[in-house]
Amino acid sequence: MEQVFSYEHLSTFTEEVFIKIGCPQDQARLAATVLLSADLRGIDSHGVARLSGYVRLWEAGRINATPDIRIVHESPSTAVVDGDSGLGLVVAPFAMQVAISKAQTAGTGWVSVRNSNHFGIAGYHAMKALEHDMVGMAMTNASPLVAPTFATERMLGTNPIAVAIPAKEQPPFVADFATTTAANGKLEILQRKQQEAPLGWIQDKVGIPSSNPNELKSGGALLPLGGDREHGSHKGYCLGAIVDIFSAVLSGANYGPWAPPFVSFLPLPPDPVGKGLGHFFGAMRVDAFRPADEFKEHMDTWINRFRSAETVAGQEKVLIPGDPEREMEADRRISGIPLLEPVVKDLGEVAMKFKIDF
Amino acid sequence: MEQVFSYEHLSTFTEEVFIKIGCPQDQARLAATVLLSADLRGIDSHGVARLSGYVRLWEAGRINATPDIRIVHESPSTAVVDGDSGLGLVVAPFAMQVAISKAQTAGTGWVSVRNSNHFGIAGYHAMKALEHDMVGMAMTNASPLVAPTFATERMLGTNPIAVAIPAKEQPPFVADFATTTAANGKLEILQRKQQEAPLGWIQDKVGIPSSNPNELKSGGALLPLGGDREHGSHKGYCLGAIVDIFSAVLSGANYGPWAPPFVSFLPLPPDPVGKGLGHFFGAMRVDAFRPADEFKEHMDTWINRFRSAETVAGQEKVLIPGDPEREMEADRRISGIPLLEPVVKDLGEVAMKFKIDF
Repeated sequence: MEQVFSYEHLSTFTEEVFIKIGCPQDQARLAATVLLSADLRGIDSHGVARLSGYVRLWEAGRINATPDIRIVHESPSTAVVDGDSGLGLVVAPFAMQVAISKAQTAGTGWVSVRNSNHFGIAGYHAMKALEHDMVGMAMTNASPLVAPTFATERMLGTNPIAVAIPAKEQPPFVADFATTTAANGKLEILQRKQQEAPLGWIQDKVGIPSSNPNELKSGGALLPLGGDREHGSHKGYCLGAIVDIFSAVLSGANYGPWAPPFVSFLPLPPDPVGKGLGHFFGAMRVDAFRPADEFKEHMDTWINRFRSAETVAGQEKVLIPGDPEREMEADRRISGIPLLEPVVKDLGEVAMKFKIDF
Repeated sequence: MEQVFSYEHLSTFTEEVFIKIGCPQDQARLAATVLLSADLRGIDSHGVARLSGYVRLWEAGRINATPDIRIVHESPSTAVVDGDSGLGLVVAPFAMQVAISKAQTAGTGWVSVRNSNHFGIAGYHAMKALEHDMVGMAMTNASPLVAPTFATERMLGTNPIAVAIPAKEQPPFVADFATTTAANGKLEILQRKQQEAPLGWIQDKVGIPSSNPNELKSGGALLPLGGDREHGSHKGYCLGAIVDIFSAVLSGANYGPWAPPFVSFLPLPPDPVGKGLGHFFGAMRVDAFRPADEFKEHMDTWINRFRSAETVAGQEKVLIPGDPEREMEADRRISGIPLLEPVVKDLGEVAMKFKIDF
């Protein structure tokens, strides 16, 4: 039940859609590149499958296709960027570039963003630092779906953290993960396949652990990384909270349960505590700590040592963060991107709406 | 089987011991304050129970009581500090102060440290930023005890992360957690009580999940936060790895399995890749992002909203990171610090060795 499309085909289509909602061409192209980086890297839930969601947010007047993205506060190593309700896919690259520029002069750069929308995958933005021999970081808050330890209320998003670190001969270290046991995308796959979820991923509306992947639709919640108190869910809650505060309280965006939902059919919370969604970006020049070549040689040693660690029976090797996504991208650039039937249908409807080919 | 001692008694004793090993008086006092902050905050495994361990490291020639702690590399917002094999309890406050000073001029400060030793609890150092209206961060690598996902080898320490964030009327947000499912100290308690550990904390030497808390002594390993692949242990592995790289690869300390062991009876790895243990500190001036008062008011709103979230049956309230430790400290400053019999005996032996009273 999958159809395979070339990257180029999906990219051109996505760019056309963003042009149709009024984005300037260069921003439409950038937004398409950022969105499709998720499909290339195998994070299918955050890629072109969300395109119709962005369109509906624009139709609901929650996305400004021609935003005036600007720095509203700064210091030598920091800035706050206001995204003017633009696509996160465009606001985030702007903000990450500010972080990189700050790092070029101050050693590091840290940018908190308000008044934005969903920015695709965090890893794309963190990786922009690599070409400058910098460590890159990206995080974002998101629609509230996660209950803190001991809570039944959904107070936090899946709030991902991405960290990209350059190496020399080895490919870079790229961690990119939701601060929940499992990302919401994984749950959606189980819903589609009508399969049970492992205990520790979700709880029902009164806070009892559940294996029903549809629990989220009846008042349940995703669980912080750790799953339960005994297995450290308070640590996952801490991580999600830190992402929320760095992204939204530092910048003046909406935090916690006030974070605006991605789906347009849910109303915005009536009593906003800030503007839009928040992100946080960091860039650290490696040679602000030690010579870049020396650092990168040691990263090669680090990576080689971990990759060659003894494995448990049945596992071929220990993975370095970024390995699976890089292999997926190499494959999909050649063999194409498989899309599920409902996604294909959804994109067909978007094409009809804007009278363009798909 | 516990004896209770006043904070003042333990503090004076600890300071005397550090003076006996040759620390200058001000550094001995500082080291005692840092070490005992763990006992006050209820993290008993990292406090005075470790004093004899520090003494044995000094006896083994691995701790320099009169270190020349210095900045060896810097940029406007960064520095690398060489701890000259000093007590981490003294090196870390120096480095955190550098981070705070950098933040005062550049907005943020980031300090990676090499050639250090164990620094007590990460939270103590992160919290130093609070009095300056800054967000504080502290992390450290540590003796290798943790197997990455799919590995049987112990490649990482419990590598804690602490983040302290100031509020206005509310007490600060203080997260401080090991990047494993459970800290090693919790395992030691189970060993002492001869109780089983929950599955997901440890694995045996071939990588099979185990509930035997003694598994670590027979080649087993602690597990990254998440516990197993299905519950996101690769995310805990990412976190531990990031702490290791920021602390030790950025600074030029020993990383991964090369991190020097805390216990003096284990030999140092024969082929070091750097100097000593590594730490990483950060300080971000809140008003480098938005007016400090505005930020702190929103932190109050954040904290109040999360504290009042609906709870699962049987739980009184949702905790804010730092709540349990702060309550513990308030109690122990008045009613004293309980020490287990083996710890009391151990401290008695240290007193005998240095011919001082305990």
